Amino acid sequence: MLFMVQMIVQIPSTLAPEVADEIKRREKEYSQQLQREGKWRHLWRVVGEYANVSIFDVASNDELHTLLSGLPLFPYMQIKVTPLANHPSSIVQE
Amino acid sequence: MLFMVQMIVQIPSTLAPEVADEIKRREKEYSQQLQREGKWRHLWRVVGEYANVSIFDVASNDELHTLLSGLPLFPYMQIKVTPLANHPSSIVQE
Amino acid sequence: MLFMVQMIVQIPSTLAPEVADEIKRREKEYSQQLQREGKWRHLWRVVGEYANVSIFDVASNDELHTLLSGLPLFPYMQIKVTPLANHPSSIVQE
Amino acid sequence: MLFMVQMIVQIPSTLAPEVADEIKRREKEYSQQLQREGKWRHLWRVVGEYANVSIFDVASNDELHTLLSGLPLFPYMQIKVTPLANHPSSIVQE
Amino acid sequence: MLFMVQMIVQIPSTLAPEVADEIKRREKEYSQQLQREGKWRHLWRVVGEYANVSIFDVASNDELHTLLSGLPLFPYMQIKVTPLANHPSSIVQE
Amino acid sequence: MLFMVQMIVQIPSTLAPEVADEIKRREKEYSQQLQREGKWRHLWRVVGEYANVSIFDVASNDELHTLLSGLPLFPYMQIKVTPLANHPSSIVQE
Amino acid sequence: MLFMVQMIVQIPSTLAPEVADEIKRREKEYSQQLQREGKWRHLWRVVGEYANVSIFDVASNDELHTLLSGLPLFPYMQIKVTPLANHPSSIVQE
Amino acid sequence: MLFMVQMIVQIPSTLAPEVADEIKRREKEYSQQLQREGKWRHLWRVVGEYANVSIFDVASNDELHTLLSGLPLFPYMQIKVTPLANHPSSIVQE
Amino acid sequence: MLFMVQMIVQIPSTLAPEVADEIKRREKEYSQQLQREGKWRHLWRVVGEYANVSIFDVASNDELHTLLSGLPLFPYMQIKVTPLANHPSSIVQE
Amino acid sequence: MLFMVQMIVQIPSTLAPEVADEIKRREKEYSQQLQREGKWRHLWRVVGEYANVSIFDVASNDELHTLLSGLPLFPYMQIKVTPLANHPSSIVQE
Repeated sequence: MLFMVQMIVQIPSTLAPEVADEIKRREKEYSQQLQREGKWRHLWRVVGEYANVSIFDVASNDELHTLLSGLPLFPYMQIKVTPLANHPSSIVQE
Repeated sequence: MLFMVQMIVQIPSTLAPEVADEIKRREKEYSQQLQREGKWRHLWRVVGEYANVSIFDVASNDELHTLLSGLPLFPYMQIKVTPLANHPSSIVQE
Repeated sequence: MLFMVQMIVQIPSTLAPEVADEIKRREKEYSQQLQREGKWRHLWRVVGEYANVSIFDVASNDELHTLLSGLPLFPYMQIKVTPLANHPSSIVQE
Repeated sequence: MLFMVQMIVQIPSTLAPEVADEIKRREKEYSQQLQREGKWRHLWRVVGEYANVSIFDVASNDELHTLLSGLPLFPYMQIKVTPLANHPSSIVQE
Repeated sequence: MLFMVQMIVQIPSTLAPEVADEIKRREKEYSQQLQREGKWRHLWRVVGEYANVSIFDVASNDELHTLLSGLPLFPYMQIKVTPLANHPSSIVQE
Repeated sequence: MLFMVQMIVQIPSTLAPEVADEIKRREKEYSQQLQREGKWRHLWRVVGEYANVSIFDVASNDELHTLLSGLPLFPYMQIKVTPLANHPSSIVQE
Repeated sequence: MLFMVQMIVQIPSTLAPEVADEIKRREKEYSQQLQREGKWRHLWRVVGEYANVSIFDVASNDELHTLLSGLPLFPYMQIKVTPLANHPSSIVQE
Repeated sequence: MLFMVQMIVQIPSTLAPEVADEIKRREKEYSQQLQREGKWRHLWRVVGEYANVSIFDVASNDELHTLLSGLPLFPYMQIKVTPLANHPSSIVQE
Repeated sequence: MLFMVQMIVQIPSTLAPEVADEIKRREKEYSQQLQREGKWRHLWRVVGEYANVSIFDVASNDELHTLLSGLPLFPYMQIKVTPLANHPSSIVQE
Repeated sequence: MLFMVQMIVQIPSTLAPEVADEIKRREKEYSQQLQREGKWRHLWRVVGEYANVSIFDVASNDELHTLLSGLPLFPYMQIKVTPLANHPSSIVQE
C-alpha cells in the first residue's frame, strides 16, 4: 500500500553542529535500511530545498506512523502524508 | 531527469458527457503510450480525489512542457511541477 | 485501518432540482449501506455547512478510493483524506 | 454534544527534556481520565505528525474550553475546534 | 451557549432578480423572528461586504445547525461557526 | 461606532512567568475598566484557543487604536480589526 | 476618519457589454461626485490589475458602508476595508 | 526600469473557439511588437501551466499599466507585478 | 511615480529595549526627513497593528529600494510594495 | 535549460554580525563566479525585500540543486524553483 510522504527539514540554529551531524548520520543509516527492506520505495530531493519527496510501501497506517516517527530527524521535520491508490490508466500495478 | 507532476482534473459541468468520455479515452491512450516509452515513469491516483501524482523522466524542461500541454485533458487540469534531484541518502541513482 | 474523510458538497446551481434530489436519495442509501457494513464508522454534519466529517475503516487505500469515488455525489464534492493511527494515550485500540 | 478537536503539538526546543517528559506524562493521565469519563470519545494520531484528531462529548462550550485549557500541553498546542451535529444520513444518533 | 457565525452571501448572477428578492424578503423575516426569540442575539453588517457577523445563543450544536440550514439564503452562503465561551476578564456572564 | 476585534495572544516562552502574570493582571484591570466605560462592549473567549472575540464601541479609528495599543498584552498579540455597520435586518440599532 | 479600501472588479463574462459599459459610466460619475465632496480622498489603479487602492474620509462606519454599497459596480466587486489612524511619525495630521 | 510580470491565462469555456483563436493571434502580434521595441525584455513559459513569467522594461508605472491593460488577453488573465531593482551582487547593470 | 508600501514591524523580544528605542528614534527622524522631501507622501497607522500603510513618490524602482532598505527598522520589517498608476476616474493627476 | 529561482534571505538575529558579513562576502563571490560562467543568467533585487529573483541556465536538475545548496547563505534562505520553457510567442530562443 503506497503513500507519498513529503518531508521538509528545519534544524533549529541552536542545535550544536556536531549533534546535528550525528542525527543526520543516523537518519541516513535508518533511511537506507528501510530502502533495503523495500518499505521506503523512492527518495528524491526537491531541487533548491532541504526537503524530499518519498514513496513508502507499508502494510498499514500504523506501520507508516511507526516508521516516520522513528526517523532521527522527526522532531525537526514537517511531514505531509498522501495516500495513493492504483490509477486506472497505469500500465503497471504498483 | 525527474519531475514530480501533480494533476487535478476539473471538467466543467457544461461539457457534454460523450465529449468528456472521448477526451478521457484519448487521455488514457496518450498516457499509456508515454508510460511505455519510459517518459511517464509512475502514475498514482490520490485517494478520494480526481487527481494524480506522477513522476516524469524527460531530457529537458521544454520536452516536459510539450508532453504536458499535449494531454487531451490539459485544458481541464490544474498542474504543479516540482523538479527532483538525486538524494544523497538514496541507495539507487534514479 | 482508519481514515478521517472530510467532504464538502458543492452542487452547481445549473443541476435540475429533481436530478439533484435523486442523486441525494442514492447517496443516502449508499452511505447507509456502507455504515451497516462497518466501513463508514462515523458520519457527522459540520455545523452551518453542507459538509461532513467521517471516519472510514477499510483494508487498504485502494478500497477507500473505490468507496469514495463510488459516492453518487462524488462529482460534486471536495474531499480530503487524512490517514489515522492508533494513539499511545488512547484507552482503546480502534 | 460533539466537537471535533484537532491538536498540533509544538514543544519549543528550549524546554528541558525532563520537563517535557513530565508534562507528557501528566497529559496522558489527564487524557485517559477524560476518556474514561466519556468526555473524550475518540483520540487518533495523525499519521506522520505530532498531532491528533479527537472527538469530545460535552454539555457546553464552556465545559469544552475548561477541558482543553486544562491540558498540560495546552501552552504548546495549536487547537482547532469544529462543532458537529447529527447527520441526516447517519444510521445512529451520536 | 454562544457562537459567532460569519456569513458571506454569494448570489449567482444566473438567479432571476425577482426570485432573489423574494428569498431576501423571507430571509429578513426569518432572521427577525429568531432575533425576537433571543436566539440570534446580534447581527452586524461587515463594512464594504455583502456579509455579516452574528452572535447566536442556542441550546446545542444541533439546534444551531437547524437554524442555519433553514436560512432562505443558506444555499448561497459561505458560513463559518466559532464556538464562544465565557471570558475570565468579562464583567458580565453572557 | 462598532468594531469587531479578534485578538490572539502569543506570549514568548522566554518571558519570565512572574512578569507574564503581572502583565495579565494589568490586562484584566485595563479590560474591565474599558468594559465599565462601555467602550469594550463584549468580550468572549474562543473555545480551545488563547484568543478572544471582542466588540468595541468607539468614537473614531484613532480612539480605537489608542485603546488597543494601550493593552498591556499588545506586544504579544496578533490583532485583526473589522469595522461593523448597522444591518438592515437587525431589529435593534446598535 | 480615514479608511483604506481595496477594490477588485470581476465582471462576469455573461454580462452584456453594453450593460457593463453603462454600469462603468455610472460608476465613474458616482466616484467623481464623492471625490469632489472630499469623501473619496484618493483613487489609484493597481498596475496590471482591474483593481484600485482608495482612501476614504468619512464620519462613521455606517456612512462608509452606505457609500460603498451604493457603488454601481458593488455587486461585481471584492472589497477589503482597513481602518487607518494617525501615525506618530507623520508630519501632518490627516 | 524592470518589473517581473507573472501572467496566468484563464479563458472561460463559454468563449467560442474561433473568438479565442483570434484573440490569441492578436496577443502574439502585440507581444512580439513590444519585444521588438525592447519593452518586453523576456517571455518564458511556466512548465505545465498556461502561464508565463515576463520581464518588462518601462519608463514608469503608468506606462506598464497601459501596456498590460492593452493585452488582448487582459480580460482573461490574472496578473501579478513585482518591481525589480539592481542587485549589488549582479555583475551587470540591467 | 507612486507606490503603496505596507510595512509590518516585528522587533524580536531578544533586542534590548534601549537599542530598540534608539532604532525607533532614528526611524522617526529618517521617515520625517523623507516626508519633508516629498518622497514619503503619506504615512498611516493600521488600527490595532504595529504596521503602516504608506504612499511613496519616487523616480525609479532603484530609488525606492534604496529608501526602504535604508530604514533603521528595515531588518525587523516585513514589507510589501504595490506599484500604482493613474486611475481614469480620478479627478486629479497624482 | 532555464529555471526561475526566487530566494528570500532570513538571517537569524542570533548570528554574530561578523559571521553574517563573512557569509555574505562569500555569497557575493560565489554568485559572481556563477554569473561569469553563464549559469546564473540574471539576478535582480525584489524592491523592499531582502530577496531576489534569478534566472539559472543549467544542464540538469541535479546541477541546479548542487549550485543552490552550495550557496553560502543556503541555510538561511527560503528558495522556490520554477522550471521555464520556451514560449511560442517569444521572438528569441533562450
